[in-house]
Amino acid sequence: MSTGAEGRLAALGLTLPPPPQPFGSYVEAVRIGAMVYFSGMLPAVGHDLPVLGRVGAELTTEQGHDAARMAVLSALAAAKAFLGSLDKVTRVAKLGVYIATVGDFREHPRVADGASDVLRAVFGDELLSGRVVLGVASLPLGVPVELELLLEAAD
Amino acid sequence: MSTGAEGRLAALGLTLPPPPQPFGSYVEAVRIGAMVYFSGMLPAVGHDLPVLGRVGAELTTEQGHDAARMAVLSALAAAKAFLGSLDKVTRVAKLGVYIATVGDFREHPRVADGASDVLRAVFGDELLSGRVVLGVASLPLGVPVELELLLEAAD
Amino acid sequence: MSTGAEGRLAALGLTLPPPPQPFGSYVEAVRIGAMVYFSGMLPAVGHDLPVLGRVGAELTTEQGHDAARMAVLSALAAAKAFLGSLDKVTRVAKLGVYIATVGDFREHPRVADGASDVLRAVFGDELLSGRVVLGVASLPLGVPVELELLLEAAD
Repeated sequence: MSTGAEGRLAALGLTLPPPPQPFGSYVEAVRIGAMVYFSGMLPAVGHDLPVLGRVGAELTTEQGHDAARMAVLSALAAAKAFLGSLDKVTRVAKLGVYIATVGDFREHPRVADGASDVLRAVFGDELLSGRVVLGVASLPLGVPVELELLLEAAD
Repeated sequence: MSTGAEGRLAALGLTLPPPPQPFGSYVEAVRIGAMVYFSGMLPAVGHDLPVLGRVGAELTTEQGHDAARMAVLSALAAAKAFLGSLDKVTRVAKLGVYIATVGDFREHPRVADGASDVLRAVFGDELLSGRVVLGVASLPLGVPVELELLLEAAD
Repeated sequence: MSTGAEGRLAALGLTLPPPPQPFGSYVEAVRIGAMVYFSGMLPAVGHDLPVLGRVGAELTTEQGHDAARMAVLSALAAAKAFLGSLDKVTRVAKLGVYIATVGDFREHPRVADGASDVLRAVFGDELLSGRVVLGVASLPLGVPVELELLLEAAD
């Protein structure tokens, strides 16, 4: 059995959604040398956004966690579409987790783990990413979580 | 007629404002190898900030769009001042669009297009950027939009 | 007397806190080539978070400034732990300063200078960073300031 990212993804039984499409004058990924910069990834399935609202207000922390998990699967779909295979990923440089919240929310790490735990399961402990987590006022189209992913990848 | 960025800028009739100056202990741009990291760009003309407020509260979506357009012209002025010519830009890696909003605002893509559409017109479809858009609680000095630009550029 | 970053740090009489530990499935720093991407740095001393609240609401601008100073010392501790010595830093590419605020706060530059002024004192004017400052709705665990640091460093 493969021990690469694609093998782990299959072993975990995770299904990727269709890769996301831009909502404006931009592209989903830009490669410069070994680095691949991804646009903000939303908890979307195609153009459907099944979960809207702010974590700590309309949504619970667990719903935020699940939205982060949905968004990271969308990010993996974008990465697979761009690179051809997730096995080309050699490092996750940065995971940005931006959570729509209200001012007294404090459980950001639990929400962010919804994305980080999937990355750890798929890419393994050796490729563990850095992480920047912010509680923002609002996100595009009313989604609760947006992710920013910066990968290093082989040609 | 030139088909480079400077030629397109002239053909569009766009005038760049004076390049922005730092408001503290930092510089407007840092080059590392082929990458140029720019500091946050505000909708400023010199030290004048003609538009203040939050989009969806004191300002409309269209005013936010126009502020994003003003900020990207400031970013282009910074890039031209730093590189000597916009023709040296070989790729726009990332455009971050940070919009001061209130919690129920959802029209972030329309605001962000105020910046993205100018980048597309000046740099062309081949250099289209990735994009990360957030609705934040407040921005420096009360401006409605701040941009983060990461470019790849020739020496 | 050394004129490097370690010598300046000692001459300034600054004491670094213990390097921060991750709050989830991520690491504090990722090196790719010459670049080192750090995870979000909080105003923490070990696992203790001495200052909580939002700047402009529960906290004053000066308390925010001091929290930014505390966070940058934590970031320097992380950099020293990762690199072995701060003398290996060849450039500060980016400093992100994310401040938990309410909507009418405008004194972001003063808060951010709490971090930038330490970087300038330690690394010198030649290594001055770019800077991106945002007022966010909330931050992990209720802290008032989070920093994002991107360094270029020698092997």
